[in-house]
Amino acid sequence: MPPARGDRAARREDVSETVWQVLADKGFGGLTLRAVATAMGVSTGMLMHYFPTKRALLTHALDLLEKRTAERPRRARPTEGLATVRVMLLDILPLTPGDTARNRVWVGSWDLSLADDDLAAAQAERYTRLRASLLPHLEAARDLGELPALADLERLAASAVAFTHGLVVQALFDPARFPEEVQTAMLDEFLASARRPATAAAPAPAPAP
Amino acid sequence: MPPARGDRAARREDVSETVWQVLADKGFGGLTLRAVATAMGVSTGMLMHYFPTKRALLTHALDLLEKRTAERPRRARPTEGLATVRVMLLDILPLTPGDTARNRVWVGSWDLSLADDDLAAAQAERYTRLRASLLPHLEAARDLGELPALADLERLAASAVAFTHGLVVQALFDPARFPEEVQTAMLDEFLASARRPATAAAPAPAPAP
Repeated sequence: MPPARGDRAARREDVSETVWQVLADKGFGGLTLRAVATAMGVSTGMLMHYFPTKRALLTHALDLLEKRTAERPRRARPTEGLATVRVMLLDILPLTPGDTARNRVWVGSWDLSLADDDLAAAQAERYTRLRASLLPHLEAARDLGELPALADLERLAASAVAFTHGLVVQALFDPARFPEEVQTAMLDEFLASARRPATAAAPAPAPAP
Repeated sequence: MPPARGDRAARREDVSETVWQVLADKGFGGLTLRAVATAMGVSTGMLMHYFPTKRALLTHALDLLEKRTAERPRRARPTEGLATVRVMLLDILPLTPGDTARNRVWVGSWDLSLADDDLAAAQAERYTRLRASLLPHLEAARDLGELPALADLERLAASAVAFTHGLVVQALFDPARFPEEVQTAMLDEFLASARRPATAAAPAPAPAP
């Protein structure tokens, strides 16, 4: 019946919200059936109607992370080329409390993912897609003359992802030293360095027509 | 008596080695008293003579990680300037099986460290020291004319650490795509981009005398 269904859906939402809070505070190492039950004020037995095993709880946590990442607000992408790349990388950095919580859960998930062949393969695939999603915008940047004509764009995409993920980690551990303006300035410097031709003395060839 | 003492020390060594193996295979999420006891073929009760609590086991794991990192073999540092920076960053990357196991444990420890204020502060301090350890070599590089005279060297140290740690993560998840030669080439390109003056058109001022 509709009301009961609504209650059930609302309760599922509550459970998910609590799982997310426990994750954001305590990480995967602190995500236990008991911790979630305590945070909800219910018994572990009651929670096991939702998650019969620890594994089911971890799977739900990873699904939540995917879902919240996919549904996160993103910046408008107004222009082609490096400006778009910049915005896509800004969307990854921990610049707001919500972004910070999500990044904390991502970084925490690496411990679990590295220990499980299927999860590791899924993560590798995700990073391959992220690099691939940058590529058309790097190509546009090259065609616009924003990047050297001979730049290795796949390599540049990999470097941009590496730089951004490493900056996420430093900013999570030391938010006072890496506030929004520092993270943004570091990203802008990284992109500026990509614009420069390979040697300062010899200008890069003109961009392809 | 000496023999008994030797046995005890040898047994401690065995316990540490097993803790390290479990960590490298299963991460912090898989590091339990039961998993270590099973891997050693002893009872959990027996293992609790070494680690009375899960917390004691985690603390030992973090100590092991510090110790093995401090004692790892490092490359010779033959020259001043960027060549030294390069070697220091190569020493971080997962280029050998031992380096890979240690990096896997480091990345896995972030989940735990981010959830604990003291551990997070210790980690932030460690990264501050790492950036500071690069600084004199970046200054030497600037004085040698390898870097633009006006480069922000603290910022560059932070970018170098971010890039290197992010590359560690990508290489751990996708070792086939990031073998030694790709990691090394990416690092060399990162350092080459730091050498370039801020704009291609305007050459950097001459290095300070």
